[in-house]
Amino acid sequence: MDPTPANNPDFTHLREGLPTMVDITEKSPSRRTAVAEARMELGAEIIARFQNGDLHGPKGPVFQTAIIAGTMAVKKTSDLIPFCHPLPVENCEFQITPGANGVIIRCEVSTSGKTGVEMEAMTGASVAALTVYDMCKAMNKAIRIHDLRLISKTGGKSGDFHA
Amino acid sequence: MDPTPANNPDFTHLREGLPTMVDITEKSPSRRTAVAEARMELGAEIIARFQNGDLHGPKGPVFQTAIIAGTMAVKKTSDLIPFCHPLPVENCEFQITPGANGVIIRCEVSTSGKTGVEMEAMTGASVAALTVYDMCKAMNKAIRIHDLRLISKTGGKSGDFHA
Amino acid sequence: MDPTPANNPDFTHLREGLPTMVDITEKSPSRRTAVAEARMELGAEIIARFQNGDLHGPKGPVFQTAIIAGTMAVKKTSDLIPFCHPLPVENCEFQITPGANGVIIRCEVSTSGKTGVEMEAMTGASVAALTVYDMCKAMNKAIRIHDLRLISKTGGKSGDFHA
Amino acid sequence: MDPTPANNPDFTHLREGLPTMVDITEKSPSRRTAVAEARMELGAEIIARFQNGDLHGPKGPVFQTAIIAGTMAVKKTSDLIPFCHPLPVENCEFQITPGANGVIIRCEVSTSGKTGVEMEAMTGASVAALTVYDMCKAMNKAIRIHDLRLISKTGGKSGDFHA
Amino acid sequence: MDPTPANNPDFTHLREGLPTMVDITEKSPSRRTAVAEARMELGAEIIARFQNGDLHGPKGPVFQTAIIAGTMAVKKTSDLIPFCHPLPVENCEFQITPGANGVIIRCEVSTSGKTGVEMEAMTGASVAALTVYDMCKAMNKAIRIHDLRLISKTGGKSGDFHA
Amino acid sequence: MDPTPANNPDFTHLREGLPTMVDITEKSPSRRTAVAEARMELGAEIIARFQNGDLHGPKGPVFQTAIIAGTMAVKKTSDLIPFCHPLPVENCEFQITPGANGVIIRCEVSTSGKTGVEMEAMTGASVAALTVYDMCKAMNKAIRIHDLRLISKTGGKSGDFHA
Repeated sequence: MDPTPANNPDFTHLREGLPTMVDITEKSPSRRTAVAEARMELGAEIIARFQNGDLHGPKGPVFQTAIIAGTMAVKKTSDLIPFCHPLPVENCEFQITPGANGVIIRCEVSTSGKTGVEMEAMTGASVAALTVYDMCKAMNKAIRIHDLRLISKTGGKSGDFHA
Repeated sequence: MDPTPANNPDFTHLREGLPTMVDITEKSPSRRTAVAEARMELGAEIIARFQNGDLHGPKGPVFQTAIIAGTMAVKKTSDLIPFCHPLPVENCEFQITPGANGVIIRCEVSTSGKTGVEMEAMTGASVAALTVYDMCKAMNKAIRIHDLRLISKTGGKSGDFHA
Repeated sequence: MDPTPANNPDFTHLREGLPTMVDITEKSPSRRTAVAEARMELGAEIIARFQNGDLHGPKGPVFQTAIIAGTMAVKKTSDLIPFCHPLPVENCEFQITPGANGVIIRCEVSTSGKTGVEMEAMTGASVAALTVYDMCKAMNKAIRIHDLRLISKTGGKSGDFHA
Repeated sequence: MDPTPANNPDFTHLREGLPTMVDITEKSPSRRTAVAEARMELGAEIIARFQNGDLHGPKGPVFQTAIIAGTMAVKKTSDLIPFCHPLPVENCEFQITPGANGVIIRCEVSTSGKTGVEMEAMTGASVAALTVYDMCKAMNKAIRIHDLRLISKTGGKSGDFHA
Repeated sequence: MDPTPANNPDFTHLREGLPTMVDITEKSPSRRTAVAEARMELGAEIIARFQNGDLHGPKGPVFQTAIIAGTMAVKKTSDLIPFCHPLPVENCEFQITPGANGVIIRCEVSTSGKTGVEMEAMTGASVAALTVYDMCKAMNKAIRIHDLRLISKTGGKSGDFHA
Repeated sequence: MDPTPANNPDFTHLREGLPTMVDITEKSPSRRTAVAEARMELGAEIIARFQNGDLHGPKGPVFQTAIIAGTMAVKKTSDLIPFCHPLPVENCEFQITPGANGVIIRCEVSTSGKTGVEMEAMTGASVAALTVYDMCKAMNKAIRIHDLRLISKTGGKSGDFHA
């Protein structure tokens, strides 16, 4: 990945060198979505257990706990990230896909608000991954979340984004 | 990284196929520490701005906001991760080191409790990184948290761990 | 009571066997209300104390604490119930009526939102009742909340409901 | 049930007619447990769906969501009940048993603290039941939580209690 | 100061002698702002340290921590003040001005809601001041917050206010 | 008041110019108390209403709501003040005394912890005063909290303090 700078030329959260909330009073509410993704390396042993059926599979308790924790974290985003505006979360969906050596966690969030839900999606994917880590860490402390990023966003004046 | 399985043979958070808290009533409180690390790719343009002195430098508002958000998240870990026990956080230190193309965020947490603070350190590093993301995302939406993992833990019956 | 099934044929919070938030992005905000009720058996001795005037009466500290705790819980509903949407609570009223052997707690909640406030009313009545329990439990641990249910709801596409 | 008064002669949370926290500074920490139970009437149609196997069964997403919400609520008890002391929750277990017309939810909490965990167990059972209500309410709004009470407590100077 | 009564003749939060939320269901959302101010006496020694450059100056860590804590508290106002309505905070700005013997903290909050943000501004100024207190208290326990009040509000049916 | 510097020569919450939690891992838990006080100017009209008996008197709903909000805020102190350690609050008492032109709110907090409860007492007094403000502001927007300070603390290595 080679991150390319967006056309926004400066730190929107700084005013005269001090951190601050972005003023959104003059913006209009509109439909906005964001998708974030976390990739985790769990190791072959844990993956083997996830693959053997209903106990630890995609519908099993580890993934369900991660989905619930992630959903609740999405709703807490403005409590966690200092300058995030509170937004009415209207939809939140998770997909957890097991792979050869780990899992991919996708979190999609929608709102009708004056600003976007990128941070909500990033926070949801992050806390879902931390929850998988928590439930597997007794088996393997070397688990890594090796890629957490925004996949796409739609809506808002700054335009759509697709990674 | 090739994650190697620990000697703990099963999912400690499952009891008869249902997710559950680990029972720590019989354990004794002891001094425990954990260090977690998040690595972020920010892109050269943002890094250039961080390097030019007091406004955006290591003591500037972006990193300070990240440290404060991370510290507050460490204290909220048991609210975020469903089966984490509440623990009395007694110390929490952050180090943010800018590099050529990004930053490394380290979070160290200490407690005197009946269970470890791995999740507190992981949550702190994660939320600090999400806060940096939030404050820089107007300049570059392709920012990635490309490595979040436990670096070390000490204390407790399961022994020390060093990545 | 003989619960009769509504015309909604399935679990709205499940998608392919996994729990999830209901998508309300396409719905329109409208005025909605819900009333829930909790009935508590407190025992004759506690009721006698409630009835003797201003100290423990309906305007006394036990009921006032319950009303305040219930109101604050109404505002926390989406933090407590995993798939509840955050809603702007616009009104919340409690009535506590002492009877021969206990009390009846009614909680009415109103909003202008895209989904109903049944869970807010149920959570408010529940936490108000738990608070009465907490303040009386030193006198009688056998206190029961013997009936917690929705009394009515208005607004929204699924139609009104009256128990 | 005919609630019988305990030997504690007065409201411990009132001081000169005003509500207040109970002073526990002089007490010694000891092992304490509490079990609370909520009984829910869901109606035959919903129960039939719970009984048909892995999707909605005891290990299915409705019950798992209830267990997770209940566990998180146990940890939030002192945020919800105004005069509850914060306590280090060390264990929390849920059992959900489907019956002919509903479910029985049991919540057991343990701590090593200066006061008991009755309110934690009551809050956990209550929020787990509210979560089941939330996930089933589209099918049947007449669901009732028809019995919420303390089953037992152990530890502490006031002695054990068994309903 | 000689507080003069407003034209509102009674306690809006009381209904038949019991505390309650004000019903805002029939009001229309409009743009509203409020500014609150806290004045702190810190003592000459601490002020001297604040004035000597970038470490403890207006852009230094003490003031930045206060701004961040204050902003996060603004968003938590309805969690802290029992009968405050939750409102979508759309802007929040802090100004901290060092003087001869202390600092002046100003907090301005904006929303588009059905009720005003006076309590949000007052809570933000208050928590920012408490944070400055916390970070300076090892040097001087006699620090006072000697004036916390509303400076102005605009919007809403009750008219504008300027202290 | 002329604040006199304590013997602690520096900002304990700064490490190399960055804000940080104070490390208390090596300290021993001991009994600690703190008392804080807020003085409010309410104006003669509101005071007159407080004095006329049970509706608005010291045991009336305004003061009771303030006590409950203050107690709950005491328990949330470490959520509000970024570098406060979480502490087990073991006692919390409020006294509200009406005077000629206002009220005096005292908040006393006790714990058995590794650090003091000054911030808990200050936060409790502050939020109780903000709650009185909220409930009276429709009658008088010029209400001032004109003095918020620490009255005393006991316990801990830095010694006792009395204003």
